[in-house]
Amino acid sequence: MNMRAIEFDFGKAGFPEKTIRETAGRLGKRIAELRTVVAERDYSSPAASLILPQEKKFAAESKNLAPRYRDSSTIIVVGIGGSNLGTMAVQEAVLGKYANLLGKKRIFYADTVDADSFRAITELAKKSEGNVLINAISKSGTTTETNANFNALTCALGEKASVIVTGDAGSKTLAEAEKNGYDTLTVPPAVGGRYSVFSNVGLFPLAAMGVNISALLEGATDAVDGCLEESTESPAAVIAALVYLHWKKGIRIHNQFLFSNDLESTGKWYRQLMAESIGKKGNGVTPTVSIGTTDLHSMAQLYFNTKSIFHRMVRVKKWKNANTPEGRKLKTIMGILADSAEEAFANRRKPFIKLALKDKSEYAIGQLLQLEMIEMMLLAKLMGVNPFGQPDVERYKKIARKKLGGGN
Amino acid sequence: MNMRAIEFDFGKAGFPEKTIRETAGRLGKRIAELRTVVAERDYSSPAASLILPQEKKFAAESKNLAPRYRDSSTIIVVGIGGSNLGTMAVQEAVLGKYANLLGKKRIFYADTVDADSFRAITELAKKSEGNVLINAISKSGTTTETNANFNALTCALGEKASVIVTGDAGSKTLAEAEKNGYDTLTVPPAVGGRYSVFSNVGLFPLAAMGVNISALLEGATDAVDGCLEESTESPAAVIAALVYLHWKKGIRIHNQFLFSNDLESTGKWYRQLMAESIGKKGNGVTPTVSIGTTDLHSMAQLYFNTKSIFHRMVRVKKWKNANTPEGRKLKTIMGILADSAEEAFANRRKPFIKLALKDKSEYAIGQLLQLEMIEMMLLAKLMGVNPFGQPDVERYKKIARKKLGGGN
Repeated sequence: MNMRAIEFDFGKAGFPEKTIRETAGRLGKRIAELRTVVAERDYSSPAASLILPQEKKFAAESKNLAPRYRDSSTIIVVGIGGSNLGTMAVQEAVLGKYANLLGKKRIFYADTVDADSFRAITELAKKSEGNVLINAISKSGTTTETNANFNALTCALGEKASVIVTGDAGSKTLAEAEKNGYDTLTVPPAVGGRYSVFSNVGLFPLAAMGVNISALLEGATDAVDGCLEESTESPAAVIAALVYLHWKKGIRIHNQFLFSNDLESTGKWYRQLMAESIGKKGNGVTPTVSIGTTDLHSMAQLYFNTKSIFHRMVRVKKWKNANTPEGRKLKTIMGILADSAEEAFANRRKPFIKLALKDKSEYAIGQLLQLEMIEMMLLAKLMGVNPFGQPDVERYKKIARKKLGGGN
Repeated sequence: MNMRAIEFDFGKAGFPEKTIRETAGRLGKRIAELRTVVAERDYSSPAASLILPQEKKFAAESKNLAPRYRDSSTIIVVGIGGSNLGTMAVQEAVLGKYANLLGKKRIFYADTVDADSFRAITELAKKSEGNVLINAISKSGTTTETNANFNALTCALGEKASVIVTGDAGSKTLAEAEKNGYDTLTVPPAVGGRYSVFSNVGLFPLAAMGVNISALLEGATDAVDGCLEESTESPAAVIAALVYLHWKKGIRIHNQFLFSNDLESTGKWYRQLMAESIGKKGNGVTPTVSIGTTDLHSMAQLYFNTKSIFHRMVRVKKWKNANTPEGRKLKTIMGILADSAEEAFANRRKPFIKLALKDKSEYAIGQLLQLEMIEMMLLAKLMGVNPFGQPDVERYKKIARKKLGGGN
């Protein structure tokens, strides 16, 4: 059993098993193609991200570099979209949402150009006792927000900050960074931002924060094996088939209902993955994120009424705080409320699938994210769109370049 | 000009002015009814929340109680849904997302029954130098999560924590709390959770965190005046008309595109407001939250393609950090990128309205939230549903009560 950190239940998904199997069965050829990319280590393929979990090179680079910045008590990831969403997802799931208040190291994300967030991060970095490490991440090196934040941060922090630049191997930006004496990390150019969490984009900041990236990659490796097998047995193919079948029926919102606060950012990461991968040709599925049980007190009234949503219930079986009487009690109530919500959804014929994560360990999260990336490649196949690239984003970027009056 | 903290632009909303005015014009009678509730201080009306901004009593109660807990350096709001979303929205907008790291006081939210969040909050509370104040908020007093968290927290924190209980005036819970020697605060029973931010539900924890609740209520008061005037001039009526017109056309996702990190929780608050108020009779509009410019790098590819979304672009005109060269530069780039996104949306005929907040002050946020609550009451009128109550939520609660085997 390769997907040993996740249990699946497709019994209330809204389609008979036969239909699901037939649809998933159409993915056999695509799965074989993806398997070939992995077997041949084809780094020219846009699906090259599938090679990353088994790639020793990048993990070694990140692992070797991280200890050099051991004395950095603050890490600032400068990057936006695919350059930070995967890191956030893993970090929050594994270290918890309160890591910056509880842990010895703090991590901040400078993504959009928000003057007030910038000031807060800068103040906190200046006050930190240890050094500050800025990891600027941009595959192209031309991202407006990332360049603006990077310039502002290095200017504000001066000597207190070390810099590592992560970008496409062979890019002008990396060459420049090296000229400036910065450490650099490379990303295979064919790996798109939203598929890059298991490259140095995610691996380095996670390793620097103390996340076990070997276990993360091990989980992802097992997901590659488990999801690129016989199509009707692949959970990624089955989920893709279900999202597709609902989409064909006109159900075009897919809601991640995450029964764990620490998983919220895995949902936000999935939003980008789904929106950019299949939001094409005048179509798409709108991904949303809900937190259980919180959103039972916020969104459930709508969920019981609307006909447009297909839900993915994600639960955690083992909590970290399971050894205290309070922890056990809260865990029990969480389980009962999630059961009750599912029962009520089923009664109202609101379709959902269930994923139960063994825990929030690196291994389990690696498995989840890799499963979902493969799911998206397969869903795109069924929908007849290219899961890579995001051509329409150029629409506003072109206008912005003109208004900004420069090359970026 | 009563709505002086918000500028509106309906020029790219996707409907001609005449249609908008006609639809908004149908709300005249409803607006007059709501005005009467305010004029007559009719606390028996389900729209009684409209009286709160001008109500001196509750503001005085919260303001008088807050200084007694001056030495509490940690405040834990125990409540879920309408009992904490408004507080979060105002607190994050006004004090900023990094307030817990930068400020002298910390505020935590114990909402769902998450064993790991519970442990983190408890650890942090135990380590805090000052006292801890637990504000348990539940209108009914029977909310499963709130009771479980309250019991677990008071047990874990013992003597270190003081307790204030906020609930419906005259409820059994409040009587019990008083018997236990706790301070109590009341909420008018007719005011529903998602409309309760300007009652003691929101006012007390906000006052205790140093938020200027007088300015908050002043902004809300001006919004009541500005939104309950002649229907075609009321921005709440115009926005309600637009959401309704799009809904009739089949555009049933409404996306808050917030170009400020600190506004994310105002979007989450609005999600509940919209989902529970109009998600009825097998219908509704699905509210979503996006952050600009972050989600231009995540969701924009979809937004340029799907035909199902009506957007609300919300910007901030004045940032706190506007006096440094870096702050000014980031602010300028933010403006250009938001302009570019809007231009690209307009080119692709993706409909949106624009709200520009003067700043993130208490006054402006009070105005925004009050506008949106009135908008929802008017939208419900157009859609023919009751904006109050959330009858279908009982569906899972009934099952949960059985499984929990008790009265809660």
